[in-house]
Amino acid sequence: MKFLSEKAKRLTPYTAGLQPREDGWIKLNTNENPYPPSPRVFEVLHNFDTSRLRLYPDMEATELKEAIVADENLDKETTIAHVKNWCKTAVAEGKLSEKVLMARVKELCGPLTDEDFLNVGNVFCANGNDEVLALAFAAFFSGKERVLSPDISYGFYPVWGEMFDVEMQFVSLGADFSINPLNYVGGNGVVIANPNAPTSLVLQLADIEKILKQNPDGVVLIDETYMAYARAQSAVALVGRYENLLVTRTFSKSRSLAGLRVGYAIGQPHLIDGLRRARDAFNSYPLDLVAQKCAAAAMSDREYFDETTAKVIATREKTIASLQEIGCNVLPSQANFIFMESSDAPGLYEFLCQNKILVRHWDNPRIKNFLRISIGTDEEMGTLCRVIKQFREESKCEK
Amino acid sequence: MKFLSEKAKRLTPYTAGLQPREDGWIKLNTNENPYPPSPRVFEVLHNFDTSRLRLYPDMEATELKEAIVADENLDKETTIAHVKNWCKTAVAEGKLSEKVLMARVKELCGPLTDEDFLNVGNVFCANGNDEVLALAFAAFFSGKERVLSPDISYGFYPVWGEMFDVEMQFVSLGADFSINPLNYVGGNGVVIANPNAPTSLVLQLADIEKILKQNPDGVVLIDETYMAYARAQSAVALVGRYENLLVTRTFSKSRSLAGLRVGYAIGQPHLIDGLRRARDAFNSYPLDLVAQKCAAAAMSDREYFDETTAKVIATREKTIASLQEIGCNVLPSQANFIFMESSDAPGLYEFLCQNKILVRHWDNPRIKNFLRISIGTDEEMGTLCRVIKQFREESKCEK
Repeated sequence: MKFLSEKAKRLTPYTAGLQPREDGWIKLNTNENPYPPSPRVFEVLHNFDTSRLRLYPDMEATELKEAIVADENLDKETTIAHVKNWCKTAVAEGKLSEKVLMARVKELCGPLTDEDFLNVGNVFCANGNDEVLALAFAAFFSGKERVLSPDISYGFYPVWGEMFDVEMQFVSLGADFSINPLNYVGGNGVVIANPNAPTSLVLQLADIEKILKQNPDGVVLIDETYMAYARAQSAVALVGRYENLLVTRTFSKSRSLAGLRVGYAIGQPHLIDGLRRARDAFNSYPLDLVAQKCAAAAMSDREYFDETTAKVIATREKTIASLQEIGCNVLPSQANFIFMESSDAPGLYEFLCQNKILVRHWDNPRIKNFLRISIGTDEEMGTLCRVIKQFREESKCEK
Repeated sequence: MKFLSEKAKRLTPYTAGLQPREDGWIKLNTNENPYPPSPRVFEVLHNFDTSRLRLYPDMEATELKEAIVADENLDKETTIAHVKNWCKTAVAEGKLSEKVLMARVKELCGPLTDEDFLNVGNVFCANGNDEVLALAFAAFFSGKERVLSPDISYGFYPVWGEMFDVEMQFVSLGADFSINPLNYVGGNGVVIANPNAPTSLVLQLADIEKILKQNPDGVVLIDETYMAYARAQSAVALVGRYENLLVTRTFSKSRSLAGLRVGYAIGQPHLIDGLRRARDAFNSYPLDLVAQKCAAAAMSDREYFDETTAKVIATREKTIASLQEIGCNVLPSQANFIFMESSDAPGLYEFLCQNKILVRHWDNPRIKNFLRISIGTDEEMGTLCRVIKQFREESKCEK
């Protein structure tokens, strides 16, 4: 098209899973949570001070960051020490945008407290984990070569690579779809989803640490979209020790807030400042006030989170058992979806569609015999298993 | 910083106006609306179906687009004809991402109606006008030379230029801060805020049309953030006739929803598809469901919009008259802010701060003797005028 930039012409945009507009579908295609968000989100919306919406939101999402800091059990003392140290360096170098901002805030609002330091600290929030990741590509990978990522992973990584002129190097997964940490060495950046999608497999913390050590000159992005569902420790535990680690997370899955678009990153302050630089070169106010307040409320409800997460995991295990019983090969999932082999995956996809069940299938040759199926309620997964069983029986008859 | 990309290092991020965290300020620095949003926004929030937030939002923001189409009086027949024609061309060229999407939607949800065509039509919504503009830079200007824009205008334009490797050419405003359309010829793109900020001056439709004709090979972006307050016709009236026109607008000012982050663009479908391409290479779901529904409600309340807009305009005229009475030079504003000359603008800025009034000042030599002051309530502007009067009297005494 005549007016498109060369970059926009070359791009292969990401295609998200379908959102059918009519009711009646069992929707297992975009890894949404089958349970509603915490009742505290309801409370926030129903008591919202609408008049406040006339003003711009807090661009640093301070209240939300505080809720995240509390939940992630980040060590406050360490964080404050980090930030103060980083501010000092930046002032010494005489080139800190944040410093200018903080000075102005101080001027207007009085001396800075430890909270202020914390606020510019280890957390960055944006409009969904996708925006966090896009800004991370802009801040840390733009124009670089040899940014390492698995060849089968989240389909948006190569798109951001194109968008920000990154020369990605895609590393093959093992025959069992596992990620071998030894294959990630000397990158100018690394992007790994952990657990990985669509494979559903997880890396343990020791392997993440290996990758951090093997790539000291590049930012290692660990995308923990699905970590709540894994028997593995979050890389957040390593943030204090690795200056090259950035962990990203989302409210879309385990917090049941895909419709609200909130994601965040945790890393040392120099990385958070890098994200802020990229943000302020794109859109200074990525998170609206309603999203900030609702996400903070959801984050504060640990009990509800534990309960719904446990339910999804229980349903996952039950589903895998049922599918194995009828002879299906399912990878040992550590996410809120399963990756299931089928010799006729496109046929099964169609059959499921005919039965108003929506799952996800990719044409990529390596995974063309697999379907990715989100974990719904027990009832939905029961229906799924019955329909798959029926498909398999009918297929046998045809042979 | 070691990990930053070269681009991120080079960037000069945008600095938004300060958002003080303590109460008690008369906040006239970021052109927010002094009045709360339409009561219909309150209704939406207080009756919100929270459980729906577990699902991803409609990435096309269909309901919101419909509200926009209704309010902007876009000719539905023309729009549908445009879109159908564009789909046909794209199918013929065999390279239409949207076509694939629409085919899949059709497959699942039945035949496409005229509404479906309208939905992919002339409107694009994103997370604030800033995101719309950023995506427009990515889609239409990235990597190009000679994209024309006034040398004094919205401070984010040059930042997006840096972010997306655009060689901007900044055209000097006239001595009276006016934009001369004859200076905008043969660009690979044009970006003009109309009314312009911080000057508050407006171009009439005939001048916009001149610029469209003089730049047939580039997209002409008309940023109508402040158009609701102008005695001038919106360029939306020209969308049907110019394939190179993209008009952007916001809910942040005249709809009192700065805290909600919603902006939109109106243009012919090939430009809307270009924006969609850029979006899907950055963040597929830019608008959360709450923002979509609240913005649609605000858009539907034309009466409230007319009423609050008229109040702001009346206060503006009264303020200008008061300031002129005490000898101030104020440009003939067509926006919800005024641009006022002061021989000691930094001094006045400080004096206003001491009196808990926040306005905006830039160090740019050309406008260093000016302050940009948002229009608040009558009461707030009365206080402002008194404090300015006091400053002028004290300054005289000192001389």
